[in-house]
Amino acid sequence: MSGRPNPLKRTSAIGVFDSGIGGLTVVRELLRILPHEPIVYLGDTARVPYGNKSRETVLKFSTENVLFLLHHDVKLIVIACHTSSSFALPFLEKHFNHPILGVIEPGVEMALRSTRSGRIGVIGTNATIASQAYPHAIARRNPKVKLTQVACPLFVPLVEEGLLSDPLAKEVAWRYLKTMKAARVDTLILGCTHYPLLKEILREVMGPKVQLIDSARQVALKARQVLESFQMAAPGRNGVRPPRRFFVTDEPRHFEALSRRFLGQRIGDVAKV
Amino acid sequence: MSGRPNPLKRTSAIGVFDSGIGGLTVVRELLRILPHEPIVYLGDTARVPYGNKSRETVLKFSTENVLFLLHHDVKLIVIACHTSSSFALPFLEKHFNHPILGVIEPGVEMALRSTRSGRIGVIGTNATIASQAYPHAIARRNPKVKLTQVACPLFVPLVEEGLLSDPLAKEVAWRYLKTMKAARVDTLILGCTHYPLLKEILREVMGPKVQLIDSARQVALKARQVLESFQMAAPGRNGVRPPRRFFVTDEPRHFEALSRRFLGQRIGDVAKV
Repeated sequence: MSGRPNPLKRTSAIGVFDSGIGGLTVVRELLRILPHEPIVYLGDTARVPYGNKSRETVLKFSTENVLFLLHHDVKLIVIACHTSSSFALPFLEKHFNHPILGVIEPGVEMALRSTRSGRIGVIGTNATIASQAYPHAIARRNPKVKLTQVACPLFVPLVEEGLLSDPLAKEVAWRYLKTMKAARVDTLILGCTHYPLLKEILREVMGPKVQLIDSARQVALKARQVLESFQMAAPGRNGVRPPRRFFVTDEPRHFEALSRRFLGQRIGDVAKV
Repeated sequence: MSGRPNPLKRTSAIGVFDSGIGGLTVVRELLRILPHEPIVYLGDTARVPYGNKSRETVLKFSTENVLFLLHHDVKLIVIACHTSSSFALPFLEKHFNHPILGVIEPGVEMALRSTRSGRIGVIGTNATIASQAYPHAIARRNPKVKLTQVACPLFVPLVEEGLLSDPLAKEVAWRYLKTMKAARVDTLILGCTHYPLLKEILREVMGPKVQLIDSARQVALKARQVLESFQMAAPGRNGVRPPRRFFVTDEPRHFEALSRRFLGQRIGDVAKV
């Protein structure tokens, strides 16, 4: 993360981008933890998902998303997409002055605080797991931790189909998490913005003793910490609801239809860019 | 389909485009049915899938794909993508002189020839089913046919994960096809390029009396018919393998890795455009 750029204003928004709709789980946590902050969200729904795209392509798309957000008066950028966080964050931090947060590091930090046995698990899409972003982030901080990674590519379509507590989703979860249970992890990082919606099933399969780390919540907590340390938190005024603007790159109907499941509340207007 | 444009040569290629890799099942059938034809394939892997995009966006992407193929000396264009066929075919036919085939009509024609009971089923992605392309195409030809449609959104990720004969895929198939069995269809159109890879499971679930219509095979047969009627079939020379060129819009590694499953043989060089 770069230093605080000069022209930023406390009244500016937090900019959030994601490859599609999953990033709304991050917005949901931002609304809880930073209720006074204006938010600008960009979902790149015309090109979703990023998980099956190359590093080079994800870099290009992510840069375009940052440029869009910078045109909308933001003071902090949150990359809600795990693929983008693992492929593009170092590049974006190098080339832009704004503070930028990804979803990988905050989850890793919390997992390291949470684990007692030193056995941590990560679940994510094929791309996130293959990127080795989690092993690298953990090894940098504590090389003694034993990390078990499992790609769970069917979770995203199951969530998007609304099969959140369906027996089918349970069966898929049991299958994916078999390795995880055998590895006896005590902490499991949900390394994909869709997965918080499967928390109930994941808890059931992993058992009550395993701590689930929700990256969405952790990045929102990190955002609060960054804004406070830079004295950039919005001057909250009681009863005044800060503006929340949602943009998508494809026609917004599908996004609007699914948004409530991810955001936990009705979304306002969604504009196509 | 428009008339035969003038400058086309018999030695030109058949151009095929798809949103990604699924269209290789169409290429596989073209290789079987038209072994002497040169082929140029474009997979728009940087923007895959089209199934969750709007009509307007699919129209834009499809037009760009046609323009790319036209730069590669093609005499016939095959749209291997069902979403693109249902959203963009009429527009493309109107604006381009080249003959253009979609995957919807050939499957429908075969299904109407095959059915005895007049009860036909169609399975496809959410987008294809929601587009109503199949009901319209069937009603235009025979309004008495009783059509049952079921969207099977989990089939594509199951195929891409290689779970082609996995118990999980079977369970998903049983669930999706319950309605289809209850409707007692005697003919089932596989309305997605990924589904031919699930034929074994689909046959098991539907039973041996139900005719499965593979759109990939039907569009290849249609291509042969069109080329013959225009006297545009390639002058085949024994022992000379016509060129087959494969292009993708994203880094080709993932495409190459999965291609064998879809194409049924090793793919040659794949180039990024």
